[in-house]
Amino acid sequence: MPTYRIDLAYDGSGFRGYAANPGVRTVQGELEEVLAIVLRHDVSTVVAGRTDAGVHARGQVVSFCVDRPVDVTRVQRAVNKRLAPEVVVTAMVEVADDFDARFSARSRTYRYVVDEGRVPDPARRWTAWHVPGPLDVHAMNEAAAFFVGELDYASLCRAAEDKTTVRVVNTAAWRRDEGVLVFEVNAVAFCHQMVRSMVALCVEVGRGRLGAQEMPGIIEARDRNAARGAAPPHGLTLWSVEY
Amino acid sequence: MPTYRIDLAYDGSGFRGYAANPGVRTVQGELEEVLAIVLRHDVSTVVAGRTDAGVHARGQVVSFCVDRPVDVTRVQRAVNKRLAPEVVVTAMVEVADDFDARFSARSRTYRYVVDEGRVPDPARRWTAWHVPGPLDVHAMNEAAAFFVGELDYASLCRAAEDKTTVRVVNTAAWRRDEGVLVFEVNAVAFCHQMVRSMVALCVEVGRGRLGAQEMPGIIEARDRNAARGAAPPHGLTLWSVEY
Repeated sequence: MPTYRIDLAYDGSGFRGYAANPGVRTVQGELEEVLAIVLRHDVSTVVAGRTDAGVHARGQVVSFCVDRPVDVTRVQRAVNKRLAPEVVVTAMVEVADDFDARFSARSRTYRYVVDEGRVPDPARRWTAWHVPGPLDVHAMNEAAAFFVGELDYASLCRAAEDKTTVRVVNTAAWRRDEGVLVFEVNAVAFCHQMVRSMVALCVEVGRGRLGAQEMPGIIEARDRNAARGAAPPHGLTLWSVEY
Repeated sequence: MPTYRIDLAYDGSGFRGYAANPGVRTVQGELEEVLAIVLRHDVSTVVAGRTDAGVHARGQVVSFCVDRPVDVTRVQRAVNKRLAPEVVVTAMVEVADDFDARFSARSRTYRYVVDEGRVPDPARRWTAWHVPGPLDVHAMNEAAAFFVGELDYASLCRAAEDKTTVRVVNTAAWRRDEGVLVFEVNAVAFCHQMVRSMVALCVEVGRGRLGAQEMPGIIEARDRNAARGAAPPHGLTLWSVEY
């Protein structure tokens, strides 16, 4: 069956997350509704990263199969005509029929933006968490380094008792960029609230309320209560998915 | 009487413009309502640049007088507590009592952002005008150069027949920056819709639909219909006011 890959960017502010959920407005719900109109039959999509309410995407990837070939240019235009600029199909291509947006992905990259201005910047109110600074970015990077590796991230994951919380994190680092702090983390996969839990811990370190050296103990505790909750969703963007 | 200067940043998306207007939500309306609560009496504010509905500000300036001195730190905090992050007081200081945010200003600087991506960027949907490009930025700069000088901008101003439309524009230029085009223009003062009219003309030039050399004729016509309307408001930000 012809299989297609859609690359998707969206402003998550107005959605109750990515995943379809009857009765609430979600990105998947809107996308599948519009695809059904454009393709004239229902489709089931698979996604690389299920983002939470308020979380944005620049490089989300979705795949789906259909009975017969479609004109990708026409479908992309028709979907964008209905959903852009809130949700935008940035690319659409036919792919090998064993391609699966979720299981074919080698890794995911997320970015989180912290506005460390004395007062919040209105231009970033939907895309950055305001934490009056300056924060100690050197210490935050020391903390972030402890998140890299193949570890059990139970302390950084919202409970899902029956599933493993072991993940492989490849890189995690902060940089100061145009008056904001940007956290970029790449992992094979993430568990729920993992990036936002990392950010909450690093910000406590940046404020001097927690030492970077306390990260190993917090991770080894394998206890959600050992961490510092989750940073707010609106600072987070699914930046890219690597295949 | 003690006179104060407030520096203001705001996300204009949710307002029907800056200027107070009974029955609709405006930045001035919200600000004066909150100042009245915090100062415990009504105040009349003067503003450097009256922005239209949907237009943002990074460095708007407001001034007002009160009967007796106030604690600027307390007032700034109290106003921000109620209005941030949509409207933010970035600074508040006491100034000489002849300071007037409008008449003391030497010049105003505006920026306009054009997203020239093939598809719109959801992250810029409230702050940039999407015009699929690439646009010819060299030609746009040739066009912008004709806007500089002391000229009658009647062709670029929304009608106000009884008032002069002569203005002094100091600089006007485009640059490409991180995948967007940014127009920055500085003038002693602007008439209504002047920046957005300049942008609309430059974009027509950038698309190759109009020649840069046609700008002098359009300006000399002193006729609103000789121009190309106004670019949408959401790409525009009052960047700074110079005193």
